[in-house]
Amino acid sequence: MLTKSEVKYIQSLQQKKFRDELGLFVAEGPKLVRELLVSGHFKCQELFLTGEMKELTDPAFPDARIISPGEMERISGLQSPNGVLALFQKSASVEFNPAGKISLLLDDIQDPGNLGTIIRTADWFGIENIIASPATADCYNPKVVQSTMASLGRVNILYTDTEAWIRQYPHFPVFAASPKGSDIGSLNPPAEGILIIGNESKGIRDSLISRADQLLMIPGKGAAESLNAAVAAGILLFWLTGN
Amino acid sequence: MLTKSEVKYIQSLQQKKFRDELGLFVAEGPKLVRELLVSGHFKCQELFLTGEMKELTDPAFPDARIISPGEMERISGLQSPNGVLALFQKSASVEFNPAGKISLLLDDIQDPGNLGTIIRTADWFGIENIIASPATADCYNPKVVQSTMASLGRVNILYTDTEAWIRQYPHFPVFAASPKGSDIGSLNPPAEGILIIGNESKGIRDSLISRADQLLMIPGKGAAESLNAAVAAGILLFWLTGN
Repeated sequence: MLTKSEVKYIQSLQQKKFRDELGLFVAEGPKLVRELLVSGHFKCQELFLTGEMKELTDPAFPDARIISPGEMERISGLQSPNGVLALFQKSASVEFNPAGKISLLLDDIQDPGNLGTIIRTADWFGIENIIASPATADCYNPKVVQSTMASLGRVNILYTDTEAWIRQYPHFPVFAASPKGSDIGSLNPPAEGILIIGNESKGIRDSLISRADQLLMIPGKGAAESLNAAVAAGILLFWLTGN
Repeated sequence: MLTKSEVKYIQSLQQKKFRDELGLFVAEGPKLVRELLVSGHFKCQELFLTGEMKELTDPAFPDARIISPGEMERISGLQSPNGVLALFQKSASVEFNPAGKISLLLDDIQDPGNLGTIIRTADWFGIENIIASPATADCYNPKVVQSTMASLGRVNILYTDTEAWIRQYPHFPVFAASPKGSDIGSLNPPAEGILIIGNESKGIRDSLISRADQLLMIPGKGAAESLNAAVAAGILLFWLTGN
């Protein structure tokens, strides 16, 4: 049985304000929760299962609480709850040195789905670090968590003043995705650098664009005005990590 | 003033059943609607504007109806309606010959956001034709329409029995995105062919996989299990059209 205040407490984690206050986030679904448990990246605070999911109880977490499907519906943020919901402790994002690798810098990526897809794509290409502007969607937003497919536990995401952060590395190569840039088909991919991906409608702010050593353009043949931010990030990371 | 039955009629277009019956779909927002009007690809049946959008009335469509913000809210499918809503006539999808070009085949792409992004990406790379299995999301779903950013009017999308369709071209090159395929970094991109992109969770059905001349794998270095379907399509189209 869940108490009323427990239900309220878990529901509140759908909002950033309460995730920040409580230092917790929600993940749902047998596959995602199991992967996050196994990765060991986040400490699991509490695990809820409906009866039919009992066999999924992980030995790593013996204290799962069995709740009714009705209760699961109340605490779930999904349209169709799928029997498993866990509260994890947010991890502190860690400062890092960008030398010798490719890192991503997100300038106000607004859509949680896009952010989740970018994190998953970064993980695919072995990108270890993402720097995100404070106005970028929260990586612990439930939509982001669900769309990262557990990559959230494998990529370090640092929310910070991106302009100040990049000033720490005045001579480090910086690249920006831009339709006004050079065709990447005519360039050699660098082995290290920061790749900036801009906001879905506004693109990259001037102060960051002006810091870029090179603007990178994905060659297109059609009439579309731009690519989706996550697709552009995917193509550029494919190109950057292929060498 | 909108009558009750007009409101109901427009609202019904959020559902595929009524879009199919009426042969109409909804597009919203000044930018998207203007682009669709200008492209001339779809015949505009009716255009609704709230008062403050009056200056956007296109000379190509003098019969815009001015409605109140409250009325717009009732007929809009968006959380924040933005003053412009148009009903367009769906276009008939057209049979085509795949020779000499790259075409996409979508095997049950389920998520409207993914489908919209794939259509927009196809348009960016100059892909003219998409063949979609009947269970693929409806390209006139409002979420798809909004996320295609007017590319919907520039790409021909044919919903059909994909297995039967592909049997018409027994010797034509077919490629399938698959994590079990050959690293595309080690292959030369072909100049013509059908690229199959599979369902977000199930991948590509066996009968289509077995028809593929080559499975294509996007090289990854990280631990992510897979890429998002739209990101994978983007990377493969970049690779395929780069030659």
